Amino acid sequence: MSYFKFNNKKVYYEVYGEGKPLIILNGIMMSTLSWKIFLDSFKDNQIILVDFFDQGQSEKLIEEEYKIDLQVDLINDLINHLGLDKANIVGISYGGEVALEFSIKYQDKLDKLMIFNTASYTSPWLRDIGRGWIKAAETYDANTFYKVTIPVIYSPEFYTENIEWMKNREKLLNNVFQKPFLDAMIRLIKSAEGFDVRNRVHTIEVPSLIVGAENDYLTPLPEQRFLHQKMKNSKLVIIPRCGHASMYENPTIFISLINGFFNSNTNVSLL
Amino acid sequence: MSYFKFNNKKVYYEVYGEGKPLIILNGIMMSTLSWKIFLDSFKDNQIILVDFFDQGQSEKLIEEEYKIDLQVDLINDLINHLGLDKANIVGISYGGEVALEFSIKYQDKLDKLMIFNTASYTSPWLRDIGRGWIKAAETYDANTFYKVTIPVIYSPEFYTENIEWMKNREKLLNNVFQKPFLDAMIRLIKSAEGFDVRNRVHTIEVPSLIVGAENDYLTPLPEQRFLHQKMKNSKLVIIPRCGHASMYENPTIFISLINGFFNSNTNVSLL
Amino acid sequence: MSYFKFNNKKVYYEVYGEGKPLIILNGIMMSTLSWKIFLDSFKDNQIILVDFFDQGQSEKLIEEEYKIDLQVDLINDLINHLGLDKANIVGISYGGEVALEFSIKYQDKLDKLMIFNTASYTSPWLRDIGRGWIKAAETYDANTFYKVTIPVIYSPEFYTENIEWMKNREKLLNNVFQKPFLDAMIRLIKSAEGFDVRNRVHTIEVPSLIVGAENDYLTPLPEQRFLHQKMKNSKLVIIPRCGHASMYENPTIFISLINGFFNSNTNVSLL
Amino acid sequence: MSYFKFNNKKVYYEVYGEGKPLIILNGIMMSTLSWKIFLDSFKDNQIILVDFFDQGQSEKLIEEEYKIDLQVDLINDLINHLGLDKANIVGISYGGEVALEFSIKYQDKLDKLMIFNTASYTSPWLRDIGRGWIKAAETYDANTFYKVTIPVIYSPEFYTENIEWMKNREKLLNNVFQKPFLDAMIRLIKSAEGFDVRNRVHTIEVPSLIVGAENDYLTPLPEQRFLHQKMKNSKLVIIPRCGHASMYENPTIFISLINGFFNSNTNVSLL
Repeated sequence: MSYFKFNNKKVYYEVYGEGKPLIILNGIMMSTLSWKIFLDSFKDNQIILVDFFDQGQSEKLIEEEYKIDLQVDLINDLINHLGLDKANIVGISYGGEVALEFSIKYQDKLDKLMIFNTASYTSPWLRDIGRGWIKAAETYDANTFYKVTIPVIYSPEFYTENIEWMKNREKLLNNVFQKPFLDAMIRLIKSAEGFDVRNRVHTIEVPSLIVGAENDYLTPLPEQRFLHQKMKNSKLVIIPRCGHASMYENPTIFISLINGFFNSNTNVSLL
Repeated sequence: MSYFKFNNKKVYYEVYGEGKPLIILNGIMMSTLSWKIFLDSFKDNQIILVDFFDQGQSEKLIEEEYKIDLQVDLINDLINHLGLDKANIVGISYGGEVALEFSIKYQDKLDKLMIFNTASYTSPWLRDIGRGWIKAAETYDANTFYKVTIPVIYSPEFYTENIEWMKNREKLLNNVFQKPFLDAMIRLIKSAEGFDVRNRVHTIEVPSLIVGAENDYLTPLPEQRFLHQKMKNSKLVIIPRCGHASMYENPTIFISLINGFFNSNTNVSLL
Repeated sequence: MSYFKFNNKKVYYEVYGEGKPLIILNGIMMSTLSWKIFLDSFKDNQIILVDFFDQGQSEKLIEEEYKIDLQVDLINDLINHLGLDKANIVGISYGGEVALEFSIKYQDKLDKLMIFNTASYTSPWLRDIGRGWIKAAETYDANTFYKVTIPVIYSPEFYTENIEWMKNREKLLNNVFQKPFLDAMIRLIKSAEGFDVRNRVHTIEVPSLIVGAENDYLTPLPEQRFLHQKMKNSKLVIIPRCGHASMYENPTIFISLINGFFNSNTNVSLL
Repeated sequence: MSYFKFNNKKVYYEVYGEGKPLIILNGIMMSTLSWKIFLDSFKDNQIILVDFFDQGQSEKLIEEEYKIDLQVDLINDLINHLGLDKANIVGISYGGEVALEFSIKYQDKLDKLMIFNTASYTSPWLRDIGRGWIKAAETYDANTFYKVTIPVIYSPEFYTENIEWMKNREKLLNNVFQKPFLDAMIRLIKSAEGFDVRNRVHTIEVPSLIVGAENDYLTPLPEQRFLHQKMKNSKLVIIPRCGHASMYENPTIFISLINGFFNSNTNVSLL
C-alpha cells in the first residue's frame, strides 16, 4: 500500500515477497486488486503490482489526453523509485502493450519479458472495437457497458461453463461501471489508439515469452504469431479453448508459465 | 419482386434463372438486396431470395415476440407457394440457424444443405453478445450500433485492408441504422435466443456442407466442428483469414463452394 | 487412350467430354487410372488426364536423371499437341509442383490454377523424407515401401475409419510396388529434389485456388499459407480432418471446389 | 549411476538434486543420457532418470515379447526401490504412454502428471507407421533407419533452420543405429502396439498438464485434445511451429512448463 509521484501525480503500487523483481502490468479493466488471488502462487519472485494512471488507486487524469507512452514512463519511474537495477515484466493485453513499448525504450532495465493476449498495434479494426466500447461507456449505463465489453473477452466455452460466476461478476461490475470509472475507461481506451510497435518490435532482444489464446477474439492469434516472428529471442505458446482473459480462464497455465519462465535457466546447448 | 402472405403477413421474395431451386437465407442484418452483386455468379440454379419477417421488404412484426421457428415455417410456406417439390438451401449465420431448424423439421423437402458461419445454439455467451447489440440498438444512435456490431463481424485483416470500403459502409449503414430498422433488429436478435439444435442436429441426413471461417469471432470454428461431428452426411471446409461475413470477405470461395456443391455429382466410390 | 511424343518419348494421355479444358496433374504415385472414379463428377469441362514420364503408361526414363522442369515442358507440349489456346490446370502434390512451375514459365497458356496439397519447395526436411522413401524403395520389398510411404499420406482419422479399404489397398499396392515401378518412383522422387519456387511464385497472377488439408503431414498447412501470402490473386481453403491424399479422403469437397472454381464467374464488386 | 533388479533384470537409473521427486520417462529412442543437457535447468526437484528395458544401460530383453505394461511396473518398482511415497511424473511420447498407464494403475503414487507429445492409443495408423519403422530397422542399414524415422520427428521449420545440427546428428546416430540397438527398437515399437487408454484415461484425476505441438506429425494435436477432453483435471498447452521432439525444438518452453507446473501452487479461487 504505497504511493509515489510521477509527473506530480499519485501512482499506487504494492510490493510482495522476495526474489528477482517481477512487475505485473494490468489489463485495461484491471487493477492491483485483480492480482490478490494470485499472490500465493507467485512465491519465487518479488512481486510488484501497480495501477496505471486512470486505474484503481492511481490518479485519474480527468480531462487529459495521453498515450500509452505516459504509462511506459510511469513504469520506468517506478523502477527508479524502487531502486531496481533490472526487472522482469509480465504484461496482459493493455499491460502487454505498455510492456512492449517499455522493452523497446528501456531494454537495459529488463531481464525477461512475458506478454499475454497482446497485439502489436491498434489496427483500424481494434480501434473501432474500442470506439464501440467508448460509445457504450458514454451511455453511462452500467449494463450496456457490461454486455458490450465483457462477453467478448471470454471464450464461449468458459463463459458458458462458468455462467454462475459470470452472473455474479455481472452484479459486481454493474456497481463498478459507474461514472468516474467509465470516464477513466474512455481515456484508457483512447490512450491505446495509435499504439504501433510493428516496425520496432524486432529491436527487443531480451528473452521473451509470448502467450496467445486460441479463442481470444480481441487480440487474436495472428497477432502473437506476428510478434513471435519479429522478436528473435521470443518463444510462443498457445492456450487452446481460452479467451482474452487468460489469467481467469486458465490460472494453472498462467501461473506455471510465469513461475517457470522467469525462474528457470533455459540455456540448453543441443549436443 | 413478389409477395405472398404467410400468417396473413406480407413476405417478400425474388426468383431468378432456371435449374434446381436454391433458396438463400439471409444473415440477420441482410436482405434480398444484399445478394444483387452475386446474382451473375449463380447461373446453374434457380435462385430464390427471401426477406424474413422484420427484414427488407417483408412485414415488420411490431410489438410481437417470436422465435426462429416462425421464420422456418415461413420458408416452408414459400416452398409450397412456389410449388416446389424439393429445394436446396444455403443459409448464412441467422439464415443458417433457420436452415438447420428447417432441415430437422422439413427434411423431405430438402435436397442438399449448406451453411456458412452458423452455430448449433445460442449459448449464454452468444446470447449476451446479442444483448449487448440490443443495448446498443436501444440507444437509437446509428453509430453506436455500428461500432458495437460491425467491426467484430469482420476479420481484422479484411477490415484493415479494406478500410476505405468499411468507411463507405459506415456512412451507408449510419443511414440504415435508424428507428424502424433497429427495432426490427432487436426483435430478430431476440428471436434467436433459445435457438438450440444440439440434440437434434444428428437427425439431418441430407448431404450437407458446413463452412467455417478461421477468424469468425461470433460463431467460431468449434461450432462448425461440432455440427460436422454430429451430422453424419456433412463435410466441413474452413476459410482461413476470414471473419463472420464470409460472403463479403471471400466471394470467390463463397461462390465456388455454392456452385460446386449444389451442382456436382459427388458420389465417388473409392476402389 | 492416346499417345504423343515429347523429346522423342511416349506420353500417354486421355481426353473426356467438352467444355473449357481442364488438365489434371497426378500426384507422384498416381496415374491417369487414378481419376477413373472421378470422371462422372467432372461434367462441366473437357477433362485431360496425362501420365508424367515414369508414371502409368508414359515412357520410363530408365537410367536418366531429370528434374521437374522436364514434366513442365511435357505439359506445355501436350497443350500444343492438343491445339489448345489456354487451359485450366489442377495439380495434386507432385502435380501441384509441376503446376506451379508451369504457371511461372507458361502463364499465358493458363486460365485458372488450382493446387491441392502442394509445397513451395523441397525443403531439406521434405528432401530427407523423400530419401527415406528412396531407401525403402531400394529394398525392393513391396511391403517395406508400403509401410514407409502410405500411412503417413493419410490422416489418422481416415486411415483408422477406413481400415478395411486400407487393407485392400495394401494388397493391391503390394502387387504394384515391384521393380520397374519402384525404380520409376526413385527417379520421380529425385526429380523433385531442388524444386523451389519460393522466390518466383509471386509472379503467378492468374486466379488461383490453393487447398490445404489440416492433417497433411507431408506438405503441411504452413506451406499453403506461404503460397497464399505470395500469390496475390490466390484464395486459400482448408479441409479439416484430412490428410495428404485429399481427393480420396474427401472427394465431395475435392469435386465441389474443382467444379465450382473453374466454372464460376467469381468477379463480384462489393458495393 | 545405479542399478536395481526388476523381474530379475537390470534397470539403470540416476538420481540428481533435492526437492519433490520428479521422474522423467524417455521417448522411445532416448535414454538417461538424453537428459544430461537439461539437468542444470531442473533445480527445483529431485530428478530421477531411468532407462526402460531395451533402452540405454537397462537390460535388453532379447527374444522376449512384452507390452508397455512391463515398463509401467518397472516404474512402480523403481518408486518402491527408492522408498518414495509419491512422485511427479513427466513422460515424452512412449514415456508419456507409460505415464498414462501408470497413472491409471498406480494413481495413489502420483502427485502431478505431465505428458508431452503423447497419444491415447496406438491407432491402426500409428501402428502401421511403427511397422514401417520396423521394416526400416530390419534392413539393419543405419541410414535407412535414420531417413525413415528421424525427419518426420521434427518440424519442417526446425529441421531446415538447424540443418547443420541435423547433419551432425545423422553422423552420430548412424553409429547408434546398429544391430543390438535396432533389435531393441523393434521390440520397443512392438511393445506399444495394442496400447489403448481411451476408455480408461478419464479415471486419471491428479492435476495433469498435456502438451501438444502444432507440427507433431506422429502424435498430432487431435490426440492431445482428446486426452484433455477426457481428463477432467487436465490443462492443455500447444507449442506452435514445433514437431514431435519438443524438448529439442523448444527447450525453453519445455523447461518452463516443467519447472512451473510441478512447483507452483495453482489453486486459485476466482472471486
